Parts: sequence; structure tokens; C-alpha cells
Amino acid sequence: MATTRERTQEQELPFDVFSRGCPSRGTLEHVTGRWGALTLGALSEGSLRFNELRRRVDGVSEKMLAQTLHALERDGLVLREAQPTNPPRVDYELTSLGREVAGRLMALIQCLEGRMDEVLASRERYDSGRTPTG
Amino acid sequence: MATTRERTQEQELPFDVFSRGCPSRGTLEHVTGRWGALTLGALSEGSLRFNELRRRVDGVSEKMLAQTLHALERDGLVLREAQPTNPPRVDYELTSLGREVAGRLMALIQCLEGRMDEVLASRERYDSGRTPTG
Repeated sequence: MATTRERTQEQELPFDVFSRGCPSRGTLEHVTGRWGALTLGALSEGSLRFNELRRRVDGVSEKMLAQTLHALERDGLVLREAQPTNPPRVDYELTSLGREVAGRLMALIQCLEGRMDEVLASRERYDSGRTPTG
Repeated sequence: MATTRERTQEQELPFDVFSRGCPSRGTLEHVTGRWGALTLGALSEGSLRFNELRRRVDGVSEKMLAQTLHALERDGLVLREAQPTNPPRVDYELTSLGREVAGRLMALIQCLEGRMDEVLASRERYDSGRTPTG
């Protein structure tokens, strides 16, 4: 394992998503799962209330959004702040760790959004004859 | 929509993962799904045969790996090369688009692996009383 890690990093890390039992695998899934990724992306633009988030993350159900926010809050990526107002208002925002992670995630998302023409052309080639893309 | 996009990009892109019907959402899921992410990560270290990939992506079933590779090949991220040997040998490697995407993905994974101590500490705090992490 050391040889493959050494290519990309100076020192070996104790956590490894490639290992079945490593807790980092669960966190990667919270961050990159369909709703986790879009929630972090939405919050990277600023703090939002639950219903604002629901509108921004087009297609998410109330239940899935609540579940997603709990997982991200538990992992220390999202901060839930209940405002002392009547009716109570709850804001969600990224922690500093969440901002760091969301930054990497948005770089990935923007890369994909910017290359979708190529992805769609490849799908068309693949579906019309399964020829390799070269 | 323009206002939020303008904060992060110079020009508006035609693709937007936040929209329910955008095809970029499917590609994001292929790239960041549990097996998609680990497969791209494994191939970012070099080309591999099917069984080598299966060992590297600890826990994946033969069926899920085949399905994952098809989706990534169709999106133009992975190239499947059947060698003219007997028995036939099939190598998988990243395309240039795949390398670009995998690079962004590995930056995210390494960020998470490097911050797992904080994530685990946050989970402990959360589970022992649901106090915000500050």
C-alpha cells in the first residue's frame, strides 16, 4: 500500500477510503452522495434556511434533506443554528472544515459541468456501437 | 440563478447539477457514487485489469464493478482495451477527461482522509449530546 500512497502524498495517512472498514468511506459517501453533494454545494454560496435549501436542491424530499443535514452536521461539516425567534428559525451553514471540503467538491462539479459536451458526445458514440472513445 | 453562479464563475454554463433534469447530475453520480469514486481513484494510479481493480476497490462485487465500469466508459471517463492475447486480457485506463476528473476527485478524497480526526471527534460530540461544534 505504501508504494501507491507515496506517489501522491508525502506521508502515509492513517485513513484510506479504499479499505472497506475505514470510516473515511462513510464520510466520502455523505459528501458525495446525491443529496449530500448538492447540499454542500448550495451552502457553499452562503447560509440557508431549511426551506431555502429545499428549493435550491431541486428534487430533494423533506425527509431526505433532513437526513442529509443530520449526517453532515454529525460529521462536523454543517452547523445548525436555531435562532431565538418566534416562530423559531433554523439556519444551516458550513463549518470551516465544511468550507474546505465543499471547495474541493465544487471544483469537481464545475469541472464536470464544463465538460458535459464531451460526456454527452461519448455517450452517443457508446450507444451507437460501443466503439471506444480513443 | 445567474447571481449565484456569478459568484463562482466568470460565465454561465449551460449545465447545472442543481437542476433536476440536467444530465450532469447523472455524471456526477457516476463519478461520486461509492464504487465510481473508488474505481476512478484506483485507475488514477495507472491502468488495471478487471481482477486487479476488484482487489483494489475493497468490497466491490463483480457485478457492481462491471456496471460501474460500463457507466464510466459510456461517459468517456474510462477506456476499455481488449488485448489480442489468448486468453483475452482486458485493461482499463482513464481517458484524458477521466484523468482530469479523477484529479479533482482525489483532491477531495485526500482532503477528507486528512481531516478524519476532526470528523470522528465531531461525531463523538454529536452522539454524546448533539451540541453544535462551533
